[in-house]
Amino acid sequence: MTATNYILIWGMNDVVIVEEIIKQALIEDCPAGDAAGDPLFNDETTAARLIAKENGIVSGLSVFEKTFKTVDPDVSVKTNKQDGDPFKKGETLAVVHGRIRSILRGERIALNFLQRMSGVATLTRSFVHETKGTKASIYDTRKTTPLLRALEKKAVWDGGGHNHRMNLSELAMLKDNHLKSSANVKEAVNRVRRAIGDDIRIEVEVETITAFKEALSTSCDIIMLDNMSLGDMKTCVHLNGGEKILEASGNMTLKRISKVAATGVDMISVGMLTHSYKAMDLSLKF
Amino acid sequence: MTATNYILIWGMNDVVIVEEIIKQALIEDCPAGDAAGDPLFNDETTAARLIAKENGIVSGLSVFEKTFKTVDPDVSVKTNKQDGDPFKKGETLAVVHGRIRSILRGERIALNFLQRMSGVATLTRSFVHETKGTKASIYDTRKTTPLLRALEKKAVWDGGGHNHRMNLSELAMLKDNHLKSSANVKEAVNRVRRAIGDDIRIEVEVETITAFKEALSTSCDIIMLDNMSLGDMKTCVHLNGGEKILEASGNMTLKRISKVAATGVDMISVGMLTHSYKAMDLSLKF
Amino acid sequence: MTATNYILIWGMNDVVIVEEIIKQALIEDCPAGDAAGDPLFNDETTAARLIAKENGIVSGLSVFEKTFKTVDPDVSVKTNKQDGDPFKKGETLAVVHGRIRSILRGERIALNFLQRMSGVATLTRSFVHETKGTKASIYDTRKTTPLLRALEKKAVWDGGGHNHRMNLSELAMLKDNHLKSSANVKEAVNRVRRAIGDDIRIEVEVETITAFKEALSTSCDIIMLDNMSLGDMKTCVHLNGGEKILEASGNMTLKRISKVAATGVDMISVGMLTHSYKAMDLSLKF
Amino acid sequence: MTATNYILIWGMNDVVIVEEIIKQALIEDCPAGDAAGDPLFNDETTAARLIAKENGIVSGLSVFEKTFKTVDPDVSVKTNKQDGDPFKKGETLAVVHGRIRSILRGERIALNFLQRMSGVATLTRSFVHETKGTKASIYDTRKTTPLLRALEKKAVWDGGGHNHRMNLSELAMLKDNHLKSSANVKEAVNRVRRAIGDDIRIEVEVETITAFKEALSTSCDIIMLDNMSLGDMKTCVHLNGGEKILEASGNMTLKRISKVAATGVDMISVGMLTHSYKAMDLSLKF
Amino acid sequence: MTATNYILIWGMNDVVIVEEIIKQALIEDCPAGDAAGDPLFNDETTAARLIAKENGIVSGLSVFEKTFKTVDPDVSVKTNKQDGDPFKKGETLAVVHGRIRSILRGERIALNFLQRMSGVATLTRSFVHETKGTKASIYDTRKTTPLLRALEKKAVWDGGGHNHRMNLSELAMLKDNHLKSSANVKEAVNRVRRAIGDDIRIEVEVETITAFKEALSTSCDIIMLDNMSLGDMKTCVHLNGGEKILEASGNMTLKRISKVAATGVDMISVGMLTHSYKAMDLSLKF
Amino acid sequence: MTATNYILIWGMNDVVIVEEIIKQALIEDCPAGDAAGDPLFNDETTAARLIAKENGIVSGLSVFEKTFKTVDPDVSVKTNKQDGDPFKKGETLAVVHGRIRSILRGERIALNFLQRMSGVATLTRSFVHETKGTKASIYDTRKTTPLLRALEKKAVWDGGGHNHRMNLSELAMLKDNHLKSSANVKEAVNRVRRAIGDDIRIEVEVETITAFKEALSTSCDIIMLDNMSLGDMKTCVHLNGGEKILEASGNMTLKRISKVAATGVDMISVGMLTHSYKAMDLSLKF
Repeated sequence: MTATNYILIWGMNDVVIVEEIIKQALIEDCPAGDAAGDPLFNDETTAARLIAKENGIVSGLSVFEKTFKTVDPDVSVKTNKQDGDPFKKGETLAVVHGRIRSILRGERIALNFLQRMSGVATLTRSFVHETKGTKASIYDTRKTTPLLRALEKKAVWDGGGHNHRMNLSELAMLKDNHLKSSANVKEAVNRVRRAIGDDIRIEVEVETITAFKEALSTSCDIIMLDNMSLGDMKTCVHLNGGEKILEASGNMTLKRISKVAATGVDMISVGMLTHSYKAMDLSLKF
Repeated sequence: MTATNYILIWGMNDVVIVEEIIKQALIEDCPAGDAAGDPLFNDETTAARLIAKENGIVSGLSVFEKTFKTVDPDVSVKTNKQDGDPFKKGETLAVVHGRIRSILRGERIALNFLQRMSGVATLTRSFVHETKGTKASIYDTRKTTPLLRALEKKAVWDGGGHNHRMNLSELAMLKDNHLKSSANVKEAVNRVRRAIGDDIRIEVEVETITAFKEALSTSCDIIMLDNMSLGDMKTCVHLNGGEKILEASGNMTLKRISKVAATGVDMISVGMLTHSYKAMDLSLKF
Repeated sequence: MTATNYILIWGMNDVVIVEEIIKQALIEDCPAGDAAGDPLFNDETTAARLIAKENGIVSGLSVFEKTFKTVDPDVSVKTNKQDGDPFKKGETLAVVHGRIRSILRGERIALNFLQRMSGVATLTRSFVHETKGTKASIYDTRKTTPLLRALEKKAVWDGGGHNHRMNLSELAMLKDNHLKSSANVKEAVNRVRRAIGDDIRIEVEVETITAFKEALSTSCDIIMLDNMSLGDMKTCVHLNGGEKILEASGNMTLKRISKVAATGVDMISVGMLTHSYKAMDLSLKF
Repeated sequence: MTATNYILIWGMNDVVIVEEIIKQALIEDCPAGDAAGDPLFNDETTAARLIAKENGIVSGLSVFEKTFKTVDPDVSVKTNKQDGDPFKKGETLAVVHGRIRSILRGERIALNFLQRMSGVATLTRSFVHETKGTKASIYDTRKTTPLLRALEKKAVWDGGGHNHRMNLSELAMLKDNHLKSSANVKEAVNRVRRAIGDDIRIEVEVETITAFKEALSTSCDIIMLDNMSLGDMKTCVHLNGGEKILEASGNMTLKRISKVAATGVDMISVGMLTHSYKAMDLSLKF
Repeated sequence: MTATNYILIWGMNDVVIVEEIIKQALIEDCPAGDAAGDPLFNDETTAARLIAKENGIVSGLSVFEKTFKTVDPDVSVKTNKQDGDPFKKGETLAVVHGRIRSILRGERIALNFLQRMSGVATLTRSFVHETKGTKASIYDTRKTTPLLRALEKKAVWDGGGHNHRMNLSELAMLKDNHLKSSANVKEAVNRVRRAIGDDIRIEVEVETITAFKEALSTSCDIIMLDNMSLGDMKTCVHLNGGEKILEASGNMTLKRISKVAATGVDMISVGMLTHSYKAMDLSLKF
Repeated sequence: MTATNYILIWGMNDVVIVEEIIKQALIEDCPAGDAAGDPLFNDETTAARLIAKENGIVSGLSVFEKTFKTVDPDVSVKTNKQDGDPFKKGETLAVVHGRIRSILRGERIALNFLQRMSGVATLTRSFVHETKGTKASIYDTRKTTPLLRALEKKAVWDGGGHNHRMNLSELAMLKDNHLKSSANVKEAVNRVRRAIGDDIRIEVEVETITAFKEALSTSCDIIMLDNMSLGDMKTCVHLNGGEKILEASGNMTLKRISKVAATGVDMISVGMLTHSYKAMDLSLKF
């Protein structure tokens, strides 16, 4: 059974015709021939192993495979892991078989994708780990790498996190700047609701308990507690009494995350999952 | 005087019709309307300041500006800095003026570019700092984010680094795997030289002093000392006697970089400049 | 003040870089020169009036203008109406001024857009008219013309309707087929909620009162009453007691719509708004 | 034998790399995952029947199939009809087999194409029916949906109609506005003929008998009788004596078409075939 | 008055959104920066003259200008000639003013277009010259450079030639291979006519007088005399008696062209105009 | 074994996703159906032979094949030659088998590619022939057809030539205009070297012996002797003593090339290889 033409998000799938991204990435890396590989090889084949050089969570194996297939349909990739699986230093995650010069062509690009996505998944998993036993879920943000949002959001999912709104169209988030448009929060929420109809949720961002109370009295669905102290968060959870969905946000670090989760909020969004991750150290051995 | 249609690399410029990247990024972020901003604003305008929330080196101001201009040509951006300039926490780097709903549209995307590029520039600058007074220059690698290589390479330059080959076509780098194609290094170098002609440099990667000596005897232009000890590097520099250009490579860290530079190598390439940087904390205040 | 680079939906705006659509449409219509206009005209200019040949609601004026501007930036369009305005047979909606051969180039394409969008707006307005005084709003569906969804959804808004989900990503709608995946509705809703997180609403489609009761007991946000009798709809509204948002759906016609609205449902979705409208009769007089 | 990469017009074929259109339509409908289908299904398969809910003429089966194949190459479509075949309410036109979540992805888009094309074919067939026994053929116009012209023109053919010029380049049609460029019709026709050479036909539009006589005296190939009374049309047919090809045009309705055909004209062009058709009621049953 | 967004063919214009071609050509020539110009120049400006180094006919000045404008909107181009004008060795055809590094970027590409198009125009003019005083016109063919057909066809026009069909859709040309589909020529012509309707001309290719007679008896519009002797051509012209349009074809050379024209044929098509021209020697002097 | 997704340059390969070029070329040639082939054929198949009508060197067979495959995956192409092979008038280079109407669709485009590429290869081979026995190699330039550079450069290779820089990014070539930026050549070379780092070669263009001596004293890698007399070239070779790589350039003709080669230069670049070649006479016989 061949693969479908979309990749998986939500532990499930998201259509991103990644093919286009892969093609562009390959052209970016080789606009006018491989000056080293092309003169040296014809159709000689080899097998190359994808080796982990540190521990982590893998994400992006289908992108890795599709990159080689785009270069040369004859290359085959056998994977020992599935996206979301943990791996140990020294483990072989996959074996790539095919023409040497095709593997040399795809190698760097395939790794550039896989190392980044696995970096996101690994970082996410460590945040998720810190919140175990609480009702809080870890969410990503829109602070993603331009053009790679779908890949990074999938990696967050593979790491055990949840995906916050994919884009501006999916959720109406009212921040400070939005609220200046109206006499008060309630009016702003109502104006948005009338405009967008009943399909889409509305979230209001607050920074103080006073603002939180005002938001509570509107028909919004979610309230974001932005940069609040742990004490204030607890107060909000208490005042809320389960009425609205509560999201904590603002420079979340691994150190602080378990305490935030313990306040009783439902969602914690972490910008660094997608903007300041470290690429995993993975390499291809011929 | 309006801007040219290319952006600067080499402290100078690289044509990257970034327009396409910006358009795709905007669509990625807003496939079906801004559910919050669109219902609340018409043509009201505002001025928003771009504020630094930590110290660093700025890179990507023209991409930042072009993002807003793509959303709405009426938005104007005044910058107080130039790419490559240092900034301090609290400083205002630029002021954006125009329709509120247009600024809300472009904000996240403009920042996603600028924060990443400034992250790369800032990290690069710290590596460059450590090598001051030596003859070694800091170079980037091909371990860049797919589709954003030109932007990241420009950011490396803005940080004071140099750009290693942009792609597979610009330099013939012979690694382990390439050498298996031939009886010995000399033959491999000669085969490549015959094929690619006289325009393009050839670099040979070595891991031992024995291999280094063999490479020295070929007509290659550059020799890469891969994952060598400081002692071995010094030996190679000595053996070389200025004959070939020498590049040190392999998991370079800020800690170790000054010692590597002190060995007398010409180039030091650092993968993490583009694969494991941290986005700078910059934000837009209305 | 020049126009922004997005068009308006939600009475507001939706980014659709329509430029691409317009360019493709112009190439579709003129792959190899205008065999009649090109040989006859050079730079002679004229003014052409856009005349209504029947009554209706206008939508798409910015697309109309942008089409001419894409052909020739020197063409100017002055509009007497705004999107959403009613017009009468014989009225002049706009005046186009510029090179004759450029106007001949853009004419058919500009009209093809405008006549369709105005057709959608006009049809929508008549449905909206029938539901005045009730709490029901008219919604469109995903039964839109491929590649023109944003334009048609904007036209629905201009006609006074609301926009149902723009795409599969914005709302989780569980139909018959989806429910087969799980032991019961509640489980299906819960599985979806766990997967998609808290950002996005869930709607459940039901065809019987029994199914409606089951849906009521889940944590879904909206229930769609599909192809129900007026009596059953009323029963559902009663059982609901304002708990969930109710949507009526299924072959809605102008004849029946006021009775459906009278049942007390919140949303009525009408497929024909975008799949079986009539292009308005509008023409350009030189 | 696999399918060629073009679709059929002229009862035959027209290359339209529809693949691009299908891809764009799928992305339009699913920019960030299927919020309902993705969380509920993995690789479970099903068979779904394409059912007619009214009588009509089918057109677009290959586009229907290609849409599913683009989502997922493993989906297979078996058709019981060929484009141009009539179908009855209740008939199964095709069976789709494959992964449930892939069918859910493609369903709406595949139907959006097929319902529209079949709507065009069905409307065309009814016009063709009214002209049986006369020498008149039914033609479409350039009043097509932007970006879908080739598909709609193919549907007209499948309905038994003929395709008028595909675009501005294929035929020089001189209308009122064109004639203002020259002292008289003859001069205009001659100027165009000199410019375009001998490959391409020239058509002159006339609204009166006087104008018709003038056109008759030129070297044009076709004369369009625009908005003429039946009486005037007959006069023109008589005056013509078989010299030129005659086309009747202007708000043609099903009611009036047989009388127009009876006047003896060769071509009758009908704008509504492609601008005001009704989508056929077709649906997919799992 | 700014330029329209289409370029001129037929002495007139053909829409070819050449912008796309120019962008791609610029990226092809500079994927990763101008290694020489970028390090040496900032915003210094200069004026560069476009000099002819041989005699010829100019074509492509608007493409030349647009290339520089695409690189940098600040570059301005002043032309002393119009497309179709003759130029002498040593003449200055245009002056380019702007940033040095922008001119260096665009120079080669702008010349690559202009030298080719002027080469086509110049060659065409010499063929046209040989047929002066006869009724024969010089036509191009479909043997054009892939992706540059519109530009080359415009250049043929600028040289005084005519444009044969732009593509397969504009004229039905029946060659040997097509005729095998039917019992005889008449049947083939009739089948095509029935299929394509009345808009498009039909041409039949013949190689012998017998075949010519058969073609004469059909309702085709044009007959192509393929690779006939001068004597046979004269016979065909005589037999035709002005009934059909006659085209001579087959390895036409400058030497033979005047004799072919003297036979009385209407059209002479010359493949080499677009497949074997010589680029004009033009250069840019700073 | 299927083909990889890149084509060969350097006797080897260059990734050029030619697919895109082929698709665009096919659309250019058939925007709205094949007016002759489509009405006459259904699925009838044939075999067509690709025949040489003159002697030459073949280049572009994979592009030829891919063109047909893009039209219709069922078409198969069997080749009797490989790129770079000589062919004689009358020889059959390949046989194409498949649907007649698909072959008619692809024929002209497939030949347009193959005839041009073989023209380049054939012309190159004749230059290479003239330099046999000398140390000089024949190089192409950047004077290539826009969008087809990779194809033409591959053809040069197939003809036995070498590829000069593919684009502005691969080699820093300092011409007259560049040198004006600096006090003297040495400074210019140093500035460029500092900017571009150590990866890329620098070439300096000189026209006099004085200038040559100055260039000799810099750290450049290659010196181009532009438009020099044979005597001056010899002097330069002598002065050089093997220090730098020497390239001769400037209106090289077949007549003069052997004398230039005899001067002892390393490289001779010939613009006409790619800007003034003659398409080979090849045709398809059904």
